[in-house]
Amino acid sequence: MSSTPTDARLMDGSGLARRLVEETAARAADLTRRTGTPPCLATVLVGEDPASVTYVRMKRARCEKAGIRSRHVELPATTTTAEVVATLEGLSNDPEVHGILLQHPVGPGIDERAAFEAIAPEKDVDGVTFSSFATMSFGLPGFVSCTPGGIMRLLDAYGVDPAGKRAVVVGRSAILGKPAGMMLLARNATVTYCHSHTADLSAAVREADILVAAVGRPRFIKGEDIKPGAVVVDAGYNPGNVGDVDFDTAVTRAGLITPVPGGVGPMTIAVLLAQTVDAAERQLA
Amino acid sequence: MSSTPTDARLMDGSGLARRLVEETAARAADLTRRTGTPPCLATVLVGEDPASVTYVRMKRARCEKAGIRSRHVELPATTTTAEVVATLEGLSNDPEVHGILLQHPVGPGIDERAAFEAIAPEKDVDGVTFSSFATMSFGLPGFVSCTPGGIMRLLDAYGVDPAGKRAVVVGRSAILGKPAGMMLLARNATVTYCHSHTADLSAAVREADILVAAVGRPRFIKGEDIKPGAVVVDAGYNPGNVGDVDFDTAVTRAGLITPVPGGVGPMTIAVLLAQTVDAAERQLA
Repeated sequence: MSSTPTDARLMDGSGLARRLVEETAARAADLTRRTGTPPCLATVLVGEDPASVTYVRMKRARCEKAGIRSRHVELPATTTTAEVVATLEGLSNDPEVHGILLQHPVGPGIDERAAFEAIAPEKDVDGVTFSSFATMSFGLPGFVSCTPGGIMRLLDAYGVDPAGKRAVVVGRSAILGKPAGMMLLARNATVTYCHSHTADLSAAVREADILVAAVGRPRFIKGEDIKPGAVVVDAGYNPGNVGDVDFDTAVTRAGLITPVPGGVGPMTIAVLLAQTVDAAERQLA
Repeated sequence: MSSTPTDARLMDGSGLARRLVEETAARAADLTRRTGTPPCLATVLVGEDPASVTYVRMKRARCEKAGIRSRHVELPATTTTAEVVATLEGLSNDPEVHGILLQHPVGPGIDERAAFEAIAPEKDVDGVTFSSFATMSFGLPGFVSCTPGGIMRLLDAYGVDPAGKRAVVVGRSAILGKPAGMMLLARNATVTYCHSHTADLSAAVREADILVAAVGRPRFIKGEDIKPGAVVVDAGYNPGNVGDVDFDTAVTRAGLITPVPGGVGPMTIAVLLAQTVDAAERQLA
């Protein structure tokens, strides 16, 4: 990483995530003291995909450290959609569970959307349901997708007000690009969605006062396309700890930039924990 | 309206809507013949707002002409949210009702969103629920907001493929601008949302290969900002039959343009009728 006096200021997601987790742990402790019940996140894992196993284990460990109980449900890879749905409906109706995380992708043979929709919106702390997508889109109260939610917190922490700015989101996945754009729109940015069919990506990226890269291709966005002074948020996380933005060239043009790792990444779990305590606070009130 | 050989080709929404209604009526008749049950749209009107009364009456008359039964429910302006919700839940559970239209805005004192969410997604032929917004956004099967749905049908009828084009949507309402942008994105356009906070609207509009004006301000978009050859869809409908686009100047620059009236407007009810028969076909299958 080159570093000259004109380089962008780094957006420290690790530090912000740590502070958010500390604040969340304090809220969890307070809630437990007041109600006698600790916040509880149910984690549901279907199959034995090694990456998914690792992710769930990490999330549960982070919960425990923050004073959030977790209840883990493992289902074999042969589970049917109906069985996954029944499990999630059961957790949705269980008053001892405040938040629900279905580790995804759930793998072949299961209708992931049907599974997501079996999660009660008031427990959808991972922000995957249709209802959560719509409330995000309309700027209404509700849970957000954790990574876009983390991006908005990063922008807020660094004093970036999206209102009136041109925001360009590269990528349009259901849990990252689409909701990130909708949240920026709800905060009054002029939002452009780019993706694999975009005819002139460079031209679109050059318009961005705020760029969110969420495309999943290593070093795909080049520094020469970054508008000088732009806020560059790299939500990519490719093998070898490489983002979607070519950091070394982007850092010399951007005004603010998230590093990879240590930028958007750490925010995702922090938002998951924060939303779990939000859910518990509401349900135990 | 000036008219020279270089003027834009008009997109005839009246003609397209007429053909769609004819096709819908034929499907309604066929369904009635096969099942003994005509499609049925429930219309719910809260209060006595004269414009709303007129709209509902018009929709019911159009249903009748197309062989769609309508069941009308009138509630006094003093109705509570809980009562509106109960009415809509009742209709959602009534097997004789296939589609539900809540005339909106529902007026002060009622939580419109709570009312919308009481409509079962499979009967949401007006495309107002969170679920419908999300399915539109993700390009999944489901009912669409009628006006954006009409816009997409107009584009298709005139051979406009949004894929790879820059689409600019001016306006971001929950039933028009936002879903229009999401539907264009699902069809692989590069989509930009503009609105009242957009800093340089002219610059954004000039990028548009496809422009959707849905802002509700008469002649707000000027011809000088239209990219030569662009497809201009005017979803505005302001007092005096005036659109959001300054037609006389835009028609000399656009490649295709919707007139007002006779462009987007007639498509809205046509899509409502078509979706009602879609719903009935599925429920009576």
